[in-house]
Amino acid sequence: MKWQQVQEGPSAVYVVVLDQGEDAVAELTAFARDRSLGASQVTAVGAFSQAVVGWFDRQAKDYRHIPVREQCEVLSLIGDIAVADDGPTPHLHAVLGLSDGSTRGGHLLSGRVWPTLEVVVRDSPAELAKTHRPDIGLALIDLG
Amino acid sequence: MKWQQVQEGPSAVYVVVLDQGEDAVAELTAFARDRSLGASQVTAVGAFSQAVVGWFDRQAKDYRHIPVREQCEVLSLIGDIAVADDGPTPHLHAVLGLSDGSTRGGHLLSGRVWPTLEVVVRDSPAELAKTHRPDIGLALIDLG
Amino acid sequence: MKWQQVQEGPSAVYVVVLDQGEDAVAELTAFARDRSLGASQVTAVGAFSQAVVGWFDRQAKDYRHIPVREQCEVLSLIGDIAVADDGPTPHLHAVLGLSDGSTRGGHLLSGRVWPTLEVVVRDSPAELAKTHRPDIGLALIDLG
Repeated sequence: MKWQQVQEGPSAVYVVVLDQGEDAVAELTAFARDRSLGASQVTAVGAFSQAVVGWFDRQAKDYRHIPVREQCEVLSLIGDIAVADDGPTPHLHAVLGLSDGSTRGGHLLSGRVWPTLEVVVRDSPAELAKTHRPDIGLALIDLG
Repeated sequence: MKWQQVQEGPSAVYVVVLDQGEDAVAELTAFARDRSLGASQVTAVGAFSQAVVGWFDRQAKDYRHIPVREQCEVLSLIGDIAVADDGPTPHLHAVLGLSDGSTRGGHLLSGRVWPTLEVVVRDSPAELAKTHRPDIGLALIDLG
Repeated sequence: MKWQQVQEGPSAVYVVVLDQGEDAVAELTAFARDRSLGASQVTAVGAFSQAVVGWFDRQAKDYRHIPVREQCEVLSLIGDIAVADDGPTPHLHAVLGLSDGSTRGGHLLSGRVWPTLEVVVRDSPAELAKTHRPDIGLALIDLG
């Protein structure tokens, strides 16, 4: 992972470029915590050699894991960063493009980068808190 | 719907969080009109319990309605806000992720939120006008 | 193509509206070069009458071309602009929605607009360089 701040704060903008073999979720979580991002917007394009996306099962109160075991374009990766109990946490959803142009997608659980992932992170001076909701099984942004 | 302004104007940024059962199109239209948003960009992630998306039929000059009658991840929701005859109006396109990782999408006509929809709205000091085009059957942004 | 600057620099924001029959990749490349955009973020919605998207074939070191020969909603168009050897160059990925709500997508190689494409380009004061990587077969953003 390399990154460059392309706009000064208090609403800093970062371009983050991930390298071959890195995991998108782990790297962006590390970046968010390193920079103490409290309320940010994320978009990205690039490609993965494999990924796991999730669909939230209301009955199980957990994500069903959907593996994508092939090279795929990251057609869209959109999300936000807010502050959960364990620190700044990206919430990322992805649409992936397969070799025939068909698509798969879900809540991004992991994505192994190949050859690149180009991410734009737009921060803000605010801080958004995520509160765990045991009735749902997820931590949601809580604007009070 | 709850919202928080995370960046001060003249290019204000808002995080809007929709609650269970709310309709994404109705709520974001109400928000745009309440805040008098004239030229904004929208991105969002979250999930719907059901939705209706549209594909524009050139012959019929209207949207073909495509119902999605199941819990789905909102993989991407992208769009803009400009000013039509009846006030600020969001133009939103969505990609939805089903339980097997397949996707559906279209012009967003309605989307019932469950459990959350996390929206980032980036406003600007400008105002974009939408002009109805009877030859097409749609109101388009008209930069004159 | 018409455009309007909706936010002043050094982090200028532009709304670019493409007209019927224009090619999205050619027009946005021309716009990026005309405005000398060095490090920008792009999102768009609209529709194409036809398009060609690509999936990168690691063995062939080139994009496999996937034609979409029908009217389709541009559900998401996301990307960035960085500076390659021949000047500012958009890197755009698209998800397209067909008449039955199914989707196709890939690296956007060409997209003929009908009736409109509404693009938001957020520039920054920085400049990102793209370096050709013969080992991969692509020019990647190189943060040094």
